[in-house]
Amino acid sequence: MTRRTARDLRSDSRSAVLRAFFSLRTATRQELSQHTGLSVATVSTLVKEFLTAGVVHVEAVVSSGVGRPLEQLRLDPSRGYIVGVDVAETYVETTVFDLSLDPRGTVSVPLDEHQNSPQYVVDGIRLAVHGVLALAGVSTSSVVGVGVSLPGQVQPDLGVSVFAPNWAWHDVRIKELLTAELGMHVHVDNPLKAIAVAELWFGAGREHRDLAIVNLGTGVGSGLVINGELVRGVSNNAGEWGHTLLALDGRLCRCGRQGCVEAYVGVNGMKATLSEIQPDHPALLQQEQRRFVDAVYEGVVAGDPVFVELVDETARYLAASLGDLVNMINPEHVVLTGWTVARLGDWLIPLVRAKIPDAALRSSVAVLTVSASSLASSTVALGMSTLTLEHFLAAVGLPSRTGPAPAQQG
Amino acid sequence: MTRRTARDLRSDSRSAVLRAFFSLRTATRQELSQHTGLSVATVSTLVKEFLTAGVVHVEAVVSSGVGRPLEQLRLDPSRGYIVGVDVAETYVETTVFDLSLDPRGTVSVPLDEHQNSPQYVVDGIRLAVHGVLALAGVSTSSVVGVGVSLPGQVQPDLGVSVFAPNWAWHDVRIKELLTAELGMHVHVDNPLKAIAVAELWFGAGREHRDLAIVNLGTGVGSGLVINGELVRGVSNNAGEWGHTLLALDGRLCRCGRQGCVEAYVGVNGMKATLSEIQPDHPALLQQEQRRFVDAVYEGVVAGDPVFVELVDETARYLAASLGDLVNMINPEHVVLTGWTVARLGDWLIPLVRAKIPDAALRSSVAVLTVSASSLASSTVALGMSTLTLEHFLAAVGLPSRTGPAPAQQG
Ligand SMILES: [Zn+2]
Ligand SMILES: [Zn+2]
Repeated sequence: MTRRTARDLRSDSRSAVLRAFFSLRTATRQELSQHTGLSVATVSTLVKEFLTAGVVHVEAVVSSGVGRPLEQLRLDPSRGYIVGVDVAETYVETTVFDLSLDPRGTVSVPLDEHQNSPQYVVDGIRLAVHGVLALAGVSTSSVVGVGVSLPGQVQPDLGVSVFAPNWAWHDVRIKELLTAELGMHVHVDNPLKAIAVAELWFGAGREHRDLAIVNLGTGVGSGLVINGELVRGVSNNAGEWGHTLLALDGRLCRCGRQGCVEAYVGVNGMKATLSEIQPDHPALLQQEQRRFVDAVYEGVVAGDPVFVELVDETARYLAASLGDLVNMINPEHVVLTGWTVARLGDWLIPLVRAKIPDAALRSSVAVLTVSASSLASSTVALGMSTLTLEHFLAAVGLPSRTGPAPAQQG
Repeated sequence: MTRRTARDLRSDSRSAVLRAFFSLRTATRQELSQHTGLSVATVSTLVKEFLTAGVVHVEAVVSSGVGRPLEQLRLDPSRGYIVGVDVAETYVETTVFDLSLDPRGTVSVPLDEHQNSPQYVVDGIRLAVHGVLALAGVSTSSVVGVGVSLPGQVQPDLGVSVFAPNWAWHDVRIKELLTAELGMHVHVDNPLKAIAVAELWFGAGREHRDLAIVNLGTGVGSGLVINGELVRGVSNNAGEWGHTLLALDGRLCRCGRQGCVEAYVGVNGMKATLSEIQPDHPALLQQEQRRFVDAVYEGVVAGDPVFVELVDETARYLAASLGDLVNMINPEHVVLTGWTVARLGDWLIPLVRAKIPDAALRSSVAVLTVSASSLASSTVALGMSTLTLEHFLAAVGLPSRTGPAPAQQG
């Protein structure tokens, strides 16, 4: 076993400088130093690498009359492009970003959820990637990396989809397949990690160093940010809050365990709760999950007591399970995201705020805020592009500006 | 609100070098650099501060014939002493450590659990601190700091005992009281944080960067280490796993919530389980918690089916709740500690290992090991002394070797 006693402080510093560029857009070395807390010397070393790699350029030179003129630096969007890919059971959505992570175009390709071979999914991804590059007028050779989010458990360093329950995938070497198919550098991860990174860099993470990002939809899960960094755990499974207990020996969850949070606050969990309130309710016949949530929304807006009770009970389950998360992590902020939140957030969030003091320690609740995500859609693609940019930059210093992209991005 | 977007990388580096000294005992700058992953230049800067403060000294100069002679450095135990203080409801235990954290003597003073004024507790601490200094022949002036662990929720930066449930303390400014009473620098924290730091520096943390330290006794709780660092959360409450749900609407917990883990695997939880197995069991009359656990141990050793069932059911609850912790944090290792583990660990741990695969994701269990702590007793005092040493070193560079200790250690 390798004893890993030291943090990778150099990579932390690089990340800090990069994030400072996204916050400040344009900055001098002095401003970057001030923003990150790193010494000007450390910042200068990293900026030099970024300049050599062409990732950063000098936008202006400001002379104040006193002292040396200061260079105003910013990320150079023309250095290349990144494709963010969000793969779900029913679609592939791709977005092209320039190197300052501004979106340049989005394409969505449907997937047949009854087909699930790796080759079928890889074909869908290839179509969507080439489609979005054509749409944005970007050539394959100017793409520095493709970041692909895949459902289920993913090990980014091995490039393996460890387990995708709905596809029955086990240990699929997806990065290898995609690299061969696309002829571009590929980085893989799972959607919760991507969403968390997007929030960390562009959403709630700009204001909070300790936060939990909670995603509610068919499945439920979380991403954890502690001390300004994404928590992965040893096999990239940290944050599987959706499969922590709400009730020992409770409802059967699709993970095989009984009583998981997901079996109560995921969409099928909400259906189970409705069937306990009124077993013959017509909404239970609705097979499409989004339509079911639409029906709940319309019912609660109309003041239908059954749906009001359903939302209240769901909020009770959600507050109880968020209370566990708060007691475990003691975050400053919880961001709620996902399509259930997009639809029902206005009803759920105030109820959760009211109920959470009964579910967690007082001195943890006292410092806590809860809100819906402020990010627009495509957060999975944005997060995957951010991760891919980080991987690209981790390898800068090696390639020349005109040379090929780094040979191995992990 | 302060935007804290940057990590304190300098303090991380200092900690890394200090921990390297504890691992290596004697080391050259080059060895410290190799062990920590920091550059030789960074190591040299920090070593210079440590040398100036007299915390480190040159033990030998080794000449290899080629190149410059290398200085072998080590922590200088004679620079001063630290007192670690473990305050519980029924006792105060103090241990004196030299600056290389070798123990020099221990004293224990009983507390009357029915007395609970801050002044009563402060008096007990003063007696125990002066007692142990007398025992070890250490003068007050050579003490660089006193680290005091207090039960309940503690905010170290404010020096406040936020809430100590058994004493009904609320927002007691304990650091101020103790500083005035002792005339020494005082650092306060809670026992779970102290135990976790002791494991991180001297126990399982030497082998694992992501671990959970789980303490079982009257109360139950955990300390979390992620990426080699203790997780505190925003109000120092992270790791309150004892007050996460095992069962919604379940047994009433002493925190006021229903269904917490502690109400099932704490000693009173075990009593409640026994009363469900056999409501008139004579062991339920035992008021002393340690004697109750002794009775369970003797019963299970003798093969008494009631106690065998009790231990089995307790292991089921423990595995289920550790499964939640594993799903949330995805640690490499779980260390079990505390006096219930000291007594029942040989029975509980194999059962927990067998049951945990049913309670957590397969790819998280695949990378997990579970064991009892390898540390001897007084881990709370050792952990508090470690934290105090870190605080002391955070201020070095300011005082001269012969001057007073830093004026403010936070
Ligand atoms: Zn589950
Ligand atoms: Zn509780």
